[in-house]
Amino acid sequence: MSKGLLFVVSAPAGCGKDTILEQLFKVTENVGYSVSATTRAPREGEVNGVHYHFMNREQFEQMIKDEAVLEYTEYCGNYYGTPRKAVEDMLNEGKDVILKIEVEGAMNIKRLFPECCLVFILPPSMQELERRLRKRGTETEEKIIERTAQAREELKFAENYDYLIVNGELSEAVDDLKAVISAEKLRKTRCMAKLAELRAE
Amino acid sequence: MSKGLLFVVSAPAGCGKDTILEQLFKVTENVGYSVSATTRAPREGEVNGVHYHFMNREQFEQMIKDEAVLEYTEYCGNYYGTPRKAVEDMLNEGKDVILKIEVEGAMNIKRLFPECCLVFILPPSMQELERRLRKRGTETEEKIIERTAQAREELKFAENYDYLIVNGELSEAVDDLKAVISAEKLRKTRCMAKLAELRAE
Repeated sequence: MSKGLLFVVSAPAGCGKDTILEQLFKVTENVGYSVSATTRAPREGEVNGVHYHFMNREQFEQMIKDEAVLEYTEYCGNYYGTPRKAVEDMLNEGKDVILKIEVEGAMNIKRLFPECCLVFILPPSMQELERRLRKRGTETEEKIIERTAQAREELKFAENYDYLIVNGELSEAVDDLKAVISAEKLRKTRCMAKLAELRAE
Repeated sequence: MSKGLLFVVSAPAGCGKDTILEQLFKVTENVGYSVSATTRAPREGEVNGVHYHFMNREQFEQMIKDEAVLEYTEYCGNYYGTPRKAVEDMLNEGKDVILKIEVEGAMNIKRLFPECCLVFILPPSMQELERRLRKRGTETEEKIIERTAQAREELKFAENYDYLIVNGELSEAVDDLKAVISAEKLRKTRCMAKLAELRAE
């Protein structure tokens, strides 16, 4: 059985990556999601083990020491990281895996898994991004300004990604991500085994 | 307006590329099809200007002289070629274009349009390919043997393509081709204008 493919999805806060992934998992099979670990406080409605593995700094630092995270980073004063075992298990089972991580983590994953596929979600405009952040209502004005500035910094990394998806209409963005996942599996470099099989016949 | 993308679809005879494309055009918009010119005789049900522009050798050679074909080749004793103007017009209108051409023509198109995307349709197995050729009932036994040998030759070119799609289940192959077209438009290199727009905001 061939190994699964690893996809990394990044986006500035407010670009809707959580909603896109939620919708995607409703319509795709055989795609696993790696739940990140973080030391940031849960937002309203966030469930431990579903949205994140929430933990304190001490626990997170123990994971780092044990090499139990594939990559980690500090972002806005909190640790974020990808638990290693769950990802490796799913890939070995032939399951594709989606990691939702920020830009520096994504670059680290690309170094560890050069075969992985990086997807960046863009807002339709910076103005719309700010509007969405405000609409959330979970952030202070100071945080909104901080996040908008952060988004501009993150955009600089977008050109290191393989695919760029604009989240204007949610359903279109979901279809786009679905298409990327399907198409990546059809890339010639990933299908050489089938070709060899036909030639040997 | 940005130019359309050029897709080239190739497959050995019997792999079902005509049926896949027929189905695809039922479910996609803004994808144009370039009707090839050929000197081969029409098969039953084939319509001039729809399946091919059928012409005699003299007419075809005049097109070559006039540089009115993007590429052409001789295959099983007949000319096959891609009329230039229709393709260039559609691309300039921002329409994606699909060319259905054999392997050597595809390599020529790649040289002319390095940005184009090459898709090769594979049979599920060589045995199944032969069965499909027989089932068609339009070919003599001699032709079937010739076409199977030809298919093996064409398979050698498959590794020069960008995507490989196995036509086992027709509807899956159509979905796959649709995904490839969608995903290719999302590739970072094709979205740099949007990125520049966001950064300038």
